[in-house]
Amino acid sequence: MPAPAFDAGFRNTLAELLHWRRDVRHFLTDPVDAALVQRLLRQAMRAPSVGLSQPWRWVLVEQPARRQAVEANFAAANAAAAARYQGEQATRYAALKLEGLRQAPVHLAVFADPDPGTGHGLGRQTMPGTLIWSVVMAIHTLWLAARAEGLGLGWVSILDPAPLNSLLDVPPHWTPIAYLCLGWPERASESPLLEEAGWEQRSPVEGLVFRR
Amino acid sequence: MPAPAFDAGFRNTLAELLHWRRDVRHFLTDPVDAALVQRLLRQAMRAPSVGLSQPWRWVLVEQPARRQAVEANFAAANAAAAARYQGEQATRYAALKLEGLRQAPVHLAVFADPDPGTGHGLGRQTMPGTLIWSVVMAIHTLWLAARAEGLGLGWVSILDPAPLNSLLDVPPHWTPIAYLCLGWPERASESPLLEEAGWEQRSPVEGLVFRR
Repeated sequence: MPAPAFDAGFRNTLAELLHWRRDVRHFLTDPVDAALVQRLLRQAMRAPSVGLSQPWRWVLVEQPARRQAVEANFAAANAAAAARYQGEQATRYAALKLEGLRQAPVHLAVFADPDPGTGHGLGRQTMPGTLIWSVVMAIHTLWLAARAEGLGLGWVSILDPAPLNSLLDVPPHWTPIAYLCLGWPERASESPLLEEAGWEQRSPVEGLVFRR
Repeated sequence: MPAPAFDAGFRNTLAELLHWRRDVRHFLTDPVDAALVQRLLRQAMRAPSVGLSQPWRWVLVEQPARRQAVEANFAAANAAAAARYQGEQATRYAALKLEGLRQAPVHLAVFADPDPGTGHGLGRQTMPGTLIWSVVMAIHTLWLAARAEGLGLGWVSILDPAPLNSLLDVPPHWTPIAYLCLGWPERASESPLLEEAGWEQRSPVEGLVFRR
């Protein structure tokens, strides 16, 4: 197959995709077609992985009792996180909506197999973190592919990861990386919710690039 | 601005982009326009970051002495990594080209500021790794945006990260994440080099998705 040439029109639309990709916490409850989810997962697995190790493990969480346990896990972790802030910042934190667990039709837990065999250890002797980072790039691939379908993804990181393996009945040595909500967003936005809510702003990019 | 609607044509081309993105180690020495590099970096900084923390720090490595020190660092780390394999696997490892440091016109070191202030700690109390993972997603964004320009990116992970901060004269508390080569690739390919070389194969995706 000849290599595709990506043109300016595609690049402009890709830039729009990056611009309009959001961490979504406001979902409609409409279902997402199972075949679409499978297609997105296949795309996510085109992500780079160190030594072609493909250490990603995807768990579709469907049973209501499991989802409720994750919601309770979030609630406890978020209460502990909220207790860290004081004064006006505490008020602002309490007003933030930080997950859409109850509305999102698809729950996806993502793990890394820390010793996957595949890849034979190549590329990760000096920087072992690259194994987990491969899973992170697959999640990011899923995120972009989902947005291109009009789907929103929200990464719930305010969770105690320790109980997730037994809760989801997966091998104890897998490393929990992410708990993702996937569904149709209530609205599109070109600004992160945390920016809209006045929690944080975009940094000027110039200050983050150095020459040596 | 109205939200863009991404159509099937765009999604197909995005799928091609994911399919043809490679970790590149064979570069032409032709220069890359500095304005293009800056544009790619701006796009990379549209990546998601936990709490909008934007912890990425980008260092364009231009001085020849610094580049040579990185090459020497790779050579030592790769010799140590090679010593781990035996027999036929050792022969195959030795035959792999694992970096394009000498040819690539652009060298980019990427760090995470582990305590950036921005984001006020939101979202990373229970899963602190999300800070570094934000930088990884920015690198992946750069990778895709570069490929859409016809540029190749290679992530050199076979490096001892410890000396990088002083070598590149950046704050000692920054965490080294990646050393990237960027340039025009010798050729396009739809298969990872490690697959072409018989080091590892793609795993069947079905075996990596679970339902609970």
